[in-house]
Amino acid sequence: MPVPTIDWVGGLPGKIKMIDQTLLPNQYKFLYCDNVKCAWDAIKRLVVRGAPAIGVAAAMGTVVGIQKSKAKTMKQFRKDLKKVTSYLATSRPTAVNLFWALDRMERVADENSDKTVPELKRILLDEAKTILEEDKKICRRIGRNGAKLVKKGDTILTHCNAGGLATGDYGTALAVMFAAHEAGKKISVYADETRPLLQGARLTTWELMKAKIPVTLICDNMAAQVMKEGRIDLVVVGADRIAGNGDAANKIGTYGVAILAKEHGVPFYVAAPASTFDLTLKTGEEIPIEERAAEEVTEGFGKRTAPKGAKVYSPAFDVTPAKYIAGIITERGVIRKPTSAKVRKMIA
Amino acid sequence: MPVPTIDWVGGLPGKIKMIDQTLLPNQYKFLYCDNVKCAWDAIKRLVVRGAPAIGVAAAMGTVVGIQKSKAKTMKQFRKDLKKVTSYLATSRPTAVNLFWALDRMERVADENSDKTVPELKRILLDEAKTILEEDKKICRRIGRNGAKLVKKGDTILTHCNAGGLATGDYGTALAVMFAAHEAGKKISVYADETRPLLQGARLTTWELMKAKIPVTLICDNMAAQVMKEGRIDLVVVGADRIAGNGDAANKIGTYGVAILAKEHGVPFYVAAPASTFDLTLKTGEEIPIEERAAEEVTEGFGKRTAPKGAKVYSPAFDVTPAKYIAGIITERGVIRKPTSAKVRKMIA
Repeated sequence: MPVPTIDWVGGLPGKIKMIDQTLLPNQYKFLYCDNVKCAWDAIKRLVVRGAPAIGVAAAMGTVVGIQKSKAKTMKQFRKDLKKVTSYLATSRPTAVNLFWALDRMERVADENSDKTVPELKRILLDEAKTILEEDKKICRRIGRNGAKLVKKGDTILTHCNAGGLATGDYGTALAVMFAAHEAGKKISVYADETRPLLQGARLTTWELMKAKIPVTLICDNMAAQVMKEGRIDLVVVGADRIAGNGDAANKIGTYGVAILAKEHGVPFYVAAPASTFDLTLKTGEEIPIEERAAEEVTEGFGKRTAPKGAKVYSPAFDVTPAKYIAGIITERGVIRKPTSAKVRKMIA
Repeated sequence: MPVPTIDWVGGLPGKIKMIDQTLLPNQYKFLYCDNVKCAWDAIKRLVVRGAPAIGVAAAMGTVVGIQKSKAKTMKQFRKDLKKVTSYLATSRPTAVNLFWALDRMERVADENSDKTVPELKRILLDEAKTILEEDKKICRRIGRNGAKLVKKGDTILTHCNAGGLATGDYGTALAVMFAAHEAGKKISVYADETRPLLQGARLTTWELMKAKIPVTLICDNMAAQVMKEGRIDLVVVGADRIAGNGDAANKIGTYGVAILAKEHGVPFYVAAPASTFDLTLKTGEEIPIEERAAEEVTEGFGKRTAPKGAKVYSPAFDVTPAKYIAGIITERGVIRKPTSAKVRKMIA
């Protein structure tokens, strides 16, 4: 169920074309960005979201940021580039794919210091497109690797949206479901709505319904009851950053789901590309957690749902310790019961 | 922080006066009911909600249902009464206080079979008022008993609203907080917003802010993270029905919170009057769980948050097994680590 989450249109200069995910499922519209402010804002406002898609957006955002650079010398151009990547790095702090993509763009520039400025602009665009193309292949491999864990007739619970909308093509957690579905395993899915921004209600149900995979929407606080009723065979979620020991940051609420899964004897899997691992971090304790605005909780849907002046705490992510994770599904294979040694072996 | 959740106005015939809780916190308005259809609808739509308040509403609903009965004989009157109580019993299935109050009204009629019809109407009104007055005293005692469990500076997590709005006066779970606050214990509170109908966001924050108790609103899926950060000293919630062994039904999500509390070593308390116990049920497995309409999940915020046609599962309650409960705080005392024997001793 590939969706055109993000793409490049035109040559150089060109534009990023993104589904405006803030409008789904009520409106299906595209946002076009030909400048870095627009790209930064799209990442910040979750027009584009999901760790892999953020990586692509950051790479393409870098291109729109430097495509009109008037730099005559490589030194001046690298200054312009640095300004753009530093700016994009401030958009969202938790998903490591953002930093990974920006680093990769800088590294490509390093490796091509002998080129002219117009040549390097072209090389950077090609690199951004390569990141997107790689992501598509990675999604397929994650799907294939994960589908092996799914038995015929299984019901899968997922949280947030790690689908085609979160990636260049096919998803991470949802890739597992799409691949299992395509393999004729007759799965069904429970989707947590995922407050405050309801990516599960708005996006995951939308993608699964399009793919004709039976999906039932629940509020986040119903997951325990649904597990108790024996409705869930496994949990599969995405990740925004995974530490060297396998601790995985993902959308707020994931950690709670992992605890509930443990309590009910339901295996809990994380699906994510190798680029989501941050081996500079020993444990998840070091992952920075974005805090978001109170209004997303109290005024998220056009009407006020708490008294004026109510204090809100809204962490956007949480970290699930590796001990709760049955396996991390990557494009390279599944890291079962992750430990530092197993993560190093598969990823480093 | 007593609020005029529900009261009787006028004589006989008279009216039930209720805060319309569906409009809070944006509007503070009263609904008046002088007929049983109106009372049934108020319970069904959660104009009045919370197990003890539902009990009062059922008793007063019985009175508005029979106050204009034209029955000349006691036999005919009892038929009219039975019709009214049977109808009110269909409004919501889970909170036992509803059935408890209706049974009590029928019993009072049994005990007064020698009276005239006008006399019995008056006696039934007096009984409904007595249930309200008793509830006020019970709330105070629950508060007093529960406050002993709270240490100076403690932070309490609660789910849904078991406050003044859920009772005749002062709450059950929130009574503990009001009493601790009044005793100068400088507590603070985290309130789960409690999807789908957001009683935590709309009602609990409103009550605590009015009482000047520091309260922080979180989404339901943030409770695990808040506990992991060491912010919570104890959990206190209400209950809609408690089985003979201490298993407690409460708003959907409560069971999940109990598991999270156990995993983080945080004591989990239930606060409820003796009338919430249903000793006819051996365990919580026997408690009927109300399922509510999909639209409460998908259109609850005034705008559609899931694709049209999305399938929804929306149980309104869940049951927390007694093994997760550190204590049940009643007006008679605290049942620590509840078992069938301890429940029987305190309640039967």
